[in-house]
Amino acid sequence: MRKLEQIYEGKAKKVFRTDDENVYLVQYKDDATAFNGLKKGTIEGKGVINNKVTNFLMQMLETKGIPTHYVQQLSDRETLVKRVQIVPLEVVVRNIAAGSLSKRLGLEEGTPLATTVLEYCYKNDELGDPMINETHVYAMNLATPEEMDTIRDYALKINAILRDYLKEANIDLIDFKLEFGRTPDGKIILADEISPDTCRFWDSKTMEKLDKDRFRRDLGNVEGAYHEVMKRLMGE
Amino acid sequence: MRKLEQIYEGKAKKVFRTDDENVYLVQYKDDATAFNGLKKGTIEGKGVINNKVTNFLMQMLETKGIPTHYVQQLSDRETLVKRVQIVPLEVVVRNIAAGSLSKRLGLEEGTPLATTVLEYCYKNDELGDPMINETHVYAMNLATPEEMDTIRDYALKINAILRDYLKEANIDLIDFKLEFGRTPDGKIILADEISPDTCRFWDSKTMEKLDKDRFRRDLGNVEGAYHEVMKRLMGE
Repeated sequence: MRKLEQIYEGKAKKVFRTDDENVYLVQYKDDATAFNGLKKGTIEGKGVINNKVTNFLMQMLETKGIPTHYVQQLSDRETLVKRVQIVPLEVVVRNIAAGSLSKRLGLEEGTPLATTVLEYCYKNDELGDPMINETHVYAMNLATPEEMDTIRDYALKINAILRDYLKEANIDLIDFKLEFGRTPDGKIILADEISPDTCRFWDSKTMEKLDKDRFRRDLGNVEGAYHEVMKRLMGE
Repeated sequence: MRKLEQIYEGKAKKVFRTDDENVYLVQYKDDATAFNGLKKGTIEGKGVINNKVTNFLMQMLETKGIPTHYVQQLSDRETLVKRVQIVPLEVVVRNIAAGSLSKRLGLEEGTPLATTVLEYCYKNDELGDPMINETHVYAMNLATPEEMDTIRDYALKINAILRDYLKEANIDLIDFKLEFGRTPDGKIILADEISPDTCRFWDSKTMEKLDKDRFRRDLGNVEGAYHEVMKRLMGE
């Protein structure tokens, strides 16, 4: 498979066309941003870890019936994925209050939520990814009701699977962000990444943060935390 | 019925106990606030108009099968209502993009929405009434799924009824805010008010604003616009 021209550069990844029109190549960077790009930095080796952790978790999810865009890991930072059209939504699943939810609703970080919270943000940098609900999705024709049923169903299933899986590694899954894509034949599949950049992982015993909050909040040992997650999941 | 002690004072209304424990007395004020209380003022005669318009529309809605808290108008500014526990949600229904929706989603004011938008805000002054969705409602135990089904159903029915009714008076219903309450026996009924304070009303022909946006945005002739709505609806 040949790597052709770059078609997209995001905050943490680049995407390239390949000589198979149905396959893209994703390349993970070490660049880190937070607060809608206001804070910028580098987390040494992050791209390698996020690539490997994402691929590991997506393959695990595939075995449990969740379709993903994963095709094949090419190198430490490069992975082949299925070509999809990204549904312009950040799908956020929350088990424990933290981050923006804590601030918005006045709930102390660490407060367990009586039921799982599912939030949608409209992926739009200019607008600052505003939170919306399903009626906004339909009013702006971002996805169909059938697609949203699938997305909601997958998001909750992924939460249940990941929560149990991570617990075995002594990691509590506080919250995480997913993105979904439409394949050329109209199926919804999991896309983007699942990594310490997009999840809040807390050590089950010490409650130590093992995720991007260490970068956002200048908690130090950012690289160490990312490595720890990979080690606990993959033994590397 | 005797008016007893005041139990609540909001931005636009006071509520009093009466000698019937199941009946409260609402008294409408002329005070106007906007932007979560940052802008304050007075709209001369507003309390009288909002009291009459609310009672008129609630009685109309009752005839179409929507249960409301309305009991009896006592005077220009005073009305008896059923005692309810307010569900701490602002239920916003939107037919046309305007106000905070336009700003948040980058949609020009006046843009028709492909489908009706339904938003919930958590009534909490300290937090600035943040927008939430149904999963937050359940996570914070603000209402049950059955109650939310009823609220959603009533909100959409009220929208259909009001939209048709107002169209006859050459008024376009752009968006509006409702509040619901729980009766002592656990029924959900419409509470609060329906007035130019809580709805966006645009003249169907000229698109002239006939609502609180004239106060929010210093458009002038605020009192005239409130009077015009009452006149078109009630002939007064």
